[in-house]
Amino acid sequence: MKMENLPVNSLSLDFLTEFLISLEKLENDRGCRGVILTSGAPKIFSAGLDIMEMYGKSAEHYAEFWKAVQEMWLRLYQSNMVTIAAINGSSPAGGCLMAMCCDYRIMAENPKYSIGLNETQLGIVAPFWFKDTMVNTIGNRATERSLELGLLYSPPEAHKIGLVDQLVPEEKIQSMAAAVMSQWLAIPDHARQITKSMMRKPTVDRLLTHRESDIQNFVSFITKDSIQKSLQMYMEMLKQRKG
Amino acid sequence: MKMENLPVNSLSLDFLTEFLISLEKLENDRGCRGVILTSGAPKIFSAGLDIMEMYGKSAEHYAEFWKAVQEMWLRLYQSNMVTIAAINGSSPAGGCLMAMCCDYRIMAENPKYSIGLNETQLGIVAPFWFKDTMVNTIGNRATERSLELGLLYSPPEAHKIGLVDQLVPEEKIQSMAAAVMSQWLAIPDHARQITKSMMRKPTVDRLLTHRESDIQNFVSFITKDSIQKSLQMYMEMLKQRKG
Amino acid sequence: MKMENLPVNSLSLDFLTEFLISLEKLENDRGCRGVILTSGAPKIFSAGLDIMEMYGKSAEHYAEFWKAVQEMWLRLYQSNMVTIAAINGSSPAGGCLMAMCCDYRIMAENPKYSIGLNETQLGIVAPFWFKDTMVNTIGNRATERSLELGLLYSPPEAHKIGLVDQLVPEEKIQSMAAAVMSQWLAIPDHARQITKSMMRKPTVDRLLTHRESDIQNFVSFITKDSIQKSLQMYMEMLKQRKG
Repeated sequence: MKMENLPVNSLSLDFLTEFLISLEKLENDRGCRGVILTSGAPKIFSAGLDIMEMYGKSAEHYAEFWKAVQEMWLRLYQSNMVTIAAINGSSPAGGCLMAMCCDYRIMAENPKYSIGLNETQLGIVAPFWFKDTMVNTIGNRATERSLELGLLYSPPEAHKIGLVDQLVPEEKIQSMAAAVMSQWLAIPDHARQITKSMMRKPTVDRLLTHRESDIQNFVSFITKDSIQKSLQMYMEMLKQRKG
Repeated sequence: MKMENLPVNSLSLDFLTEFLISLEKLENDRGCRGVILTSGAPKIFSAGLDIMEMYGKSAEHYAEFWKAVQEMWLRLYQSNMVTIAAINGSSPAGGCLMAMCCDYRIMAENPKYSIGLNETQLGIVAPFWFKDTMVNTIGNRATERSLELGLLYSPPEAHKIGLVDQLVPEEKIQSMAAAVMSQWLAIPDHARQITKSMMRKPTVDRLLTHRESDIQNFVSFITKDSIQKSLQMYMEMLKQRKG
Repeated sequence: MKMENLPVNSLSLDFLTEFLISLEKLENDRGCRGVILTSGAPKIFSAGLDIMEMYGKSAEHYAEFWKAVQEMWLRLYQSNMVTIAAINGSSPAGGCLMAMCCDYRIMAENPKYSIGLNETQLGIVAPFWFKDTMVNTIGNRATERSLELGLLYSPPEAHKIGLVDQLVPEEKIQSMAAAVMSQWLAIPDHARQITKSMMRKPTVDRLLTHRESDIQNFVSFITKDSIQKSLQMYMEMLKQRKG
């Protein structure tokens, strides 16, 4: 499954909707037992949530957008298929979340790439289920430090703390992902799926229980003047960088 | 305490019953403050649950067997004594569980030995309290990967992820276990026991709360045609290996 | 914030009260966004809870003392400021707890210094919220071993298991703490504070829910004859060492 929402695979509402439809098709295709998630955009796996969806829109729009983000997480984190992230570019914020949802993470050894939940650097806050997913992946203390400082890790750093499972030279990432997939597919699906569900269900249930309040939280946070101003400044900075 | 149920220390119902009686005797012997768990069988610590107890028997038998497995875990994980595993052979599945129940794990540095919860490889699933015990030992992410793939680790790998605490040359394992025991016995029993209970009680309470449903789960899972067939194939493979 | 309760920064009731007042002043000072916690005593960060407050006093005194210890933890662990521990000396028991409450820990690379929750060595038991704080810092298994054996770690060992984040030569500890503080203060306060609260609130809530019973526990434990005798023996040993 190659994500292509150029230039940076931003997770816009349209992109998330399309992603969910594609994922569901594969999920229902009995011939498909595993999926490799990778990027068709140069140098970036996914830039994360699309800031344009969080700026200058209506409360209804924010709620619809956030529900789609939740849905992406719920489906990907609980997928019955074997999911492998072939992280062939930078992967901040929501891009890091997608990678963490997979069963296994392989990252290209390019020193220009980075990965992490860097929300606090933009003055916003990763929601509790982003946090839970990271705690499940790298433990409590590394998550605390990562989230408070909004850290982005280089590939060797990400590997060291367990945020990715394996590093490979960039040109070998797809073949390595295929090799790892064979290893995972050698396990009987039924036993693997029950095991995965046992590991992840408590985390999923937390969001399901608080899904509505989490949407309300997001909407009331993102509509604050101070937050809208932070995002505006961030977008202007991005424009200047391009220019 | 040297386990001897030759050839491979399978945890049969008889063996578990005998084990529980021996453990209780030591537990009630005020002169005994610690126990070293090791194997009298060559090259194997324990092969885990006896497949013969899970194949072609009645539902009543499965329930009785599973209750004994639960009881073994409950007693060993909460033992008031200092428990040290001297892992002098391979230790898959239930054998790994026994080792993880101890306060400290020393493994012989023999490259032919391996340790891990490999249930999914046989098409079956480790129950939640096996999973909880492993999460308590090596953390969430390493457990997730271990259980989904049914991984068996070599001694250096097991040491690296924290599944065992120490590696020693095979001929020194008993003397090292005795030395470590002295270190643990230097701590006042009362303070150590309260601390151990504080660390482990929440995990124990989860099984106590769901003990009956866990037995029902096991019985309905193991009596499935597909699972019985998987076990049959596995036993035939074992026979062929021997032959 | 330099602790000076000579000779060893024992956490007496008076010292805790003064500490809480100072911390609250800084917390309410809008010009103060971060605090570096360090020691003015030679060779010791803090010796932990003052044994004199736990020996030969009334139940009312014990209850008042314990409430102050709880209060110190509640305030420091949830501080809105960036808190950095510059551990310029040994830091057993309650001293280790204070360090673990901070957002970041830097320790002087002096082989004579050690850090850890060594309560069981004195025959007493770290309460559940000491344990929770350690689990949040170094994970479940390392905590279990640390607490059961009452381990004190050398600086390199403490760094290896994640009990401290960074080691520096002793003469550079204050300048390094200032440099790290700049890094943390570069993050918008609001986003960092919400994130910190999200990470730590569940742990804090556990004590708040059981605060009274935790005080009762402490009082009934510390008033036991056997415990009073243990503490007396420990104090005599300390006196002899000095002599």
